[in-house]
Amino acid sequence: MQSLWKHPNFLQIQNTPQFGIDLRSSNLHTPERIKNMNFQTPYWRISLVHQDITQQGLHALGLLALNRQALNWMQAMQRGELVNSLEGSPHAVAALHTALRANQENGMLDIAKKVRIQAIQERSRIKDFVEAYSDFNTLVVLGIGGSQLGPEALYEAIKPFQAPKREVVFIPNIDPKAHKQWADRLPLKKTVVAAISKSGSTLETAESEKWWRSALTKQGLHSSKHMVAITTPGSRLDRPEDFLGVFYFDSSIGGRYSATSSVGALPLAFAYGMQTFERLLQGASEMDAHARDTPWSSNGPLALACISIWQRQLRKRLCQGIIAYRQSLHRLAAHLQQLEMESLGKCTDKQRQPLEGYCGPLIMGEPGTCAQHSFFQWMHQGTDCVPIDFIIEMSKMGSTTLEGSMADQLIANALAQSLALAKGYASEQSHQVCPGNRPSTILACSDLSPETIGALLALYEHKTAFEGFILGINPFDQEGVELGKRMAKEVYQELEAYRAQTLQATPWWAHLMSSN
Amino acid sequence: MQSLWKHPNFLQIQNTPQFGIDLRSSNLHTPERIKNMNFQTPYWRISLVHQDITQQGLHALGLLALNRQALNWMQAMQRGELVNSLEGSPHAVAALHTALRANQENGMLDIAKKVRIQAIQERSRIKDFVEAYSDFNTLVVLGIGGSQLGPEALYEAIKPFQAPKREVVFIPNIDPKAHKQWADRLPLKKTVVAAISKSGSTLETAESEKWWRSALTKQGLHSSKHMVAITTPGSRLDRPEDFLGVFYFDSSIGGRYSATSSVGALPLAFAYGMQTFERLLQGASEMDAHARDTPWSSNGPLALACISIWQRQLRKRLCQGIIAYRQSLHRLAAHLQQLEMESLGKCTDKQRQPLEGYCGPLIMGEPGTCAQHSFFQWMHQGTDCVPIDFIIEMSKMGSTTLEGSMADQLIANALAQSLALAKGYASEQSHQVCPGNRPSTILACSDLSPETIGALLALYEHKTAFEGFILGINPFDQEGVELGKRMAKEVYQELEAYRAQTLQATPWWAHLMSSN
Repeated sequence: MQSLWKHPNFLQIQNTPQFGIDLRSSNLHTPERIKNMNFQTPYWRISLVHQDITQQGLHALGLLALNRQALNWMQAMQRGELVNSLEGSPHAVAALHTALRANQENGMLDIAKKVRIQAIQERSRIKDFVEAYSDFNTLVVLGIGGSQLGPEALYEAIKPFQAPKREVVFIPNIDPKAHKQWADRLPLKKTVVAAISKSGSTLETAESEKWWRSALTKQGLHSSKHMVAITTPGSRLDRPEDFLGVFYFDSSIGGRYSATSSVGALPLAFAYGMQTFERLLQGASEMDAHARDTPWSSNGPLALACISIWQRQLRKRLCQGIIAYRQSLHRLAAHLQQLEMESLGKCTDKQRQPLEGYCGPLIMGEPGTCAQHSFFQWMHQGTDCVPIDFIIEMSKMGSTTLEGSMADQLIANALAQSLALAKGYASEQSHQVCPGNRPSTILACSDLSPETIGALLALYEHKTAFEGFILGINPFDQEGVELGKRMAKEVYQELEAYRAQTLQATPWWAHLMSSN
Repeated sequence: MQSLWKHPNFLQIQNTPQFGIDLRSSNLHTPERIKNMNFQTPYWRISLVHQDITQQGLHALGLLALNRQALNWMQAMQRGELVNSLEGSPHAVAALHTALRANQENGMLDIAKKVRIQAIQERSRIKDFVEAYSDFNTLVVLGIGGSQLGPEALYEAIKPFQAPKREVVFIPNIDPKAHKQWADRLPLKKTVVAAISKSGSTLETAESEKWWRSALTKQGLHSSKHMVAITTPGSRLDRPEDFLGVFYFDSSIGGRYSATSSVGALPLAFAYGMQTFERLLQGASEMDAHARDTPWSSNGPLALACISIWQRQLRKRLCQGIIAYRQSLHRLAAHLQQLEMESLGKCTDKQRQPLEGYCGPLIMGEPGTCAQHSFFQWMHQGTDCVPIDFIIEMSKMGSTTLEGSMADQLIANALAQSLALAKGYASEQSHQVCPGNRPSTILACSDLSPETIGALLALYEHKTAFEGFILGINPFDQEGVELGKRMAKEVYQELEAYRAQTLQATPWWAHLMSSN
C-alpha cells in the first residue's frame, strides 16, 4: 500500500486550499450546509457544521478514505480476516471485538463465529455467576489499561440511567496504598475480587492479586472463594482451582477493544444485571452494522475519521478534545485516550516504513461544563487550536422543572461553546478578543441509555480503526510499550541492589533517593 | 516591557543550537550533569537530567528569566503589589494566595497583612465549625473550577496518609443527574452542603444550591441548617441568614489559586482536621519562601518555568504531561490543567499586544503506572514529542514486604519510563523502534505528607506565575471565558423559546433535537 501522503487524493486535498473555510464566515449556518454536514448513525447525530471544511472538502476526504480501502478493511475486520498484522509478519491475527456483540453470524468466517459463540456462552456463565453469588455486594476489579478504562467508563456512564444494585471498585494501579485504602473500608466477607488480564501476566494485576489474596487471608477468608479471573484460555490466570470462576475472552480481542467482552460483562452485569449489558451490546452492534454497511458518504464513524485526518494531517493540529456534557461520562475521555492513542500512536506503517506525516492525535478531556471553568480559557484565547468533540444528551425535559432547566443549561452551554469557538469575538479591548475559527464536532443523542452508550463506544472504536486504515498503520498492536517494561525490570533490580548496598556503581537516580 | 521573542537573551538562546542535547548521547549521566541539573526545594528534588538541554542552556534560560524580572515579580506578588493587571487598566489588583499561608508578615504591604489575618481568622472559624457540627458525616461541595479542582486534588492526595474521618463529595457539574445520584445515596440528615463561589454568581453553583435546598426540604429538613457558603464578602452568596455559616476569602485570591484559602480549608478540615490542613499550608509556605528568596540559579519553580519556556517557545512543543506515580494523585493533573492553562492560555501580553510566540502548554495526564497501559504507546512511538513531569514518592520501604516491592515497582517504573523516553530503542525491526530523545523532568519527595503535598501545590503555582512573568502575560485573569458565558445565555433563551414553539427562525442546532 502506498504512503497516504503520496496518494493522489491526499495531494489533491492538500493542493485545494478552498476546501478549508473560515468559521467566522456569515454563511456558516446555511440550511444546505447544516443538512449536508450532518450524519445520522444509530442513536447519534453527528454535526460537522462547525468543522473548518467545506462539503466538497469532506467529500474529497471521503473519497480518499474509500480509495484507501477503509470500508473494505472494516468489512474484512468484522468478517474475521487477519487485520492485526504487519507486512511479512508470521503473527497475523484477527480483531474480533465486533463478533462479541453480533446479532447473527451471516457473512462471518469460522473464526469470528467461534468468538461470537464463546462470548454468548461466557455471558451466560457470567449471568449465572452474578445471580448465584448475590451475597457479594462489592466487586473489586484488578485490571489496568484495557482491563479497566472501558469497563469503568461504561459503569460510570450507566449510573444515572440505572442505580447500580451493587458497587464496583476499580483499582488499576500497583500502588499498595490504593489497595489498602479500599480493603480497610470494604466488608471483605461480602466482596469478590476480579483479576483481569488478557495475557494473565500483567505485572500490576499479578501483584495486586497477591495483595488481595493476602488481605482476604488475613481476614480469615479463603481467597479462592472471593476471587474470579477474566483472561484468555491457557494464560497464567487460567487457574480454575484458585478462583470461584474463570471467565474467558478470545485472544483476538485487543485490551482497549475488550469492553464488550467478558472484561466488561462481569463488572456491568454485577452492577446492573446482564440485561442492561445486553442492551449496551445491542447499541454497539447497531453501530457495527452502520460502520460496515453504510456507504462512505453517509458513514458516521468514517466521517469522524476523515475529520481527524483533516485536522491532524492537513491542518497539523496535534490534539483532540473530548468534552461530554454529562458528569456520568467523566471517564469517557480517559477511555478514548487509551483507545485512540494506543491504536494510532505509531511512527511506522503496516509496510514497516516510517510515516511521512503524523500519527493520530493526542486525546484529552474533562466533562462539560467543568472544562469551561478549567482549561477553556486556553481553548478560546490560547495561541493554538485544539479541535473538540462536544457530546450532548438532548434531553427532552424542558425548563418547567429545575432539573429540566439544569439539563437545558448543559445543552445550551455545549452548543454555545461550539459556537463561541467558531465565531470568536472581536473587540477593541485586545485582551477580550477571542480569535475564533476553531473547529468542533457535535455528537447528540436523545437520551443516554445503555444502547446509546454502547453505540457511542463502538462509534469511537470504528472511528479509530478507520483512521488507522486510512493512515495505513495497524491500529491493533502496541509494540512501543515493551521498552518501558524491559527497562522497569532492570531499574527495579538496580533499586533492590541499591537498597541491599550491593550495587557497584552509583546509579543515575541515586541522588533522588536522599532524604530531603 | 519588550516582547520576550525580541529579548536579546531569548535571541541568544535561539541562535545557539548547541544549548540543545541529544538525550540518546552516552554521556547523559555524568556526575557533573546529574549534580548541576538537580534542584533542591523544600521537600522536593527536581532533576532535569533528562531534559534535552545543556547546563549552559539552562543557565542562559535562567538569565533570561532574571532579565525578564521574574524574581522581582514574584517578590512583588508575595509582598502584595497589584500584579494582576494589564497596562492602563484601572482594575489592577493583587494576587495574594501566598499571604494565606505566610508564617509571618515581614516585608508585606498592608493589603497582604490584612489577607493573612483574615485567613487566620477564617481558619479558626472553620475549625470551630467542623468541630462543633460533628454530627455531620458527609460534606457535599458545590463548586466548579477553582472551587473544586484544587480542594479535590488535595483531598484525594491526603487519603493514603490519613484516612478521612468524614467523607467529602465534590459535585461540580450543573448536571442534575449527578446531584440526584448522590442525594439518593446520602443520609441527608447527616449531610452538610457547601456552596463555594468567589463571585457568588457562578451559574452552576447557584443552580446546584437551589437543587440541594429543594432536596433537603423534601426530606423535611431546614436547608439553612444544612448548608454553608464560602465566598468573598458582599457577594450574592454572602447571606448569613440562609446558611449555618458563611466563610470568606479575599477577592485578591484567584479561583485557581484558592486551594489554600477557606475554599480548601473547609473540605480538608472537615475530612482530616484543621491540623492536617495547617501542615499542608506549612509545606506551601516553605515553597513560597523558596520561590521568593532563592537566587535564580537554584530556584526550583523558576527552573521548571524555564524548562517550560524552552520546550514551548524554543522546541515548539504544544503539550506537557503530568504523570504522578501514586493513585492518590489521580486528580493532580486535572488541577494543574486548570492552573496552568487558565493562567497561561492567552494570546495577548500585559501591554495588550499579540504574543509573538506561543502561550503556555496544554496540560494532560493520568496517574502512573496506569498511563503506561494507556497512552504511553503514543509517547514512545508516536510521531510527536510531549515532555513529561514524572512525580515520584521515593518510599523507603524496600522490597522485604509485598507492599514495599509494589511501592518499589512504582519508583522503578517511573524512572524507567523517563529513561526509555530519553534513550529510545534501536532495532532492525522498524515497528519496535522507539525514537527516543524525548525529554522529561523528575520530581521526587521522600514521602507524601501534608507538607510535601502543600509544597507540590505551591511549586506548580509558582512555576505557572514565573512562566507568566517571563512570557510577559498576566497569569491571574481569564477574559476568554466570558464569551462562552454570554453565548450560553443566548442559546439557553433560544432553546426555551424553541421548546415553547415561539421561535421565529429555525436555529442552527434544531436538527440535533430531532428524535433518532
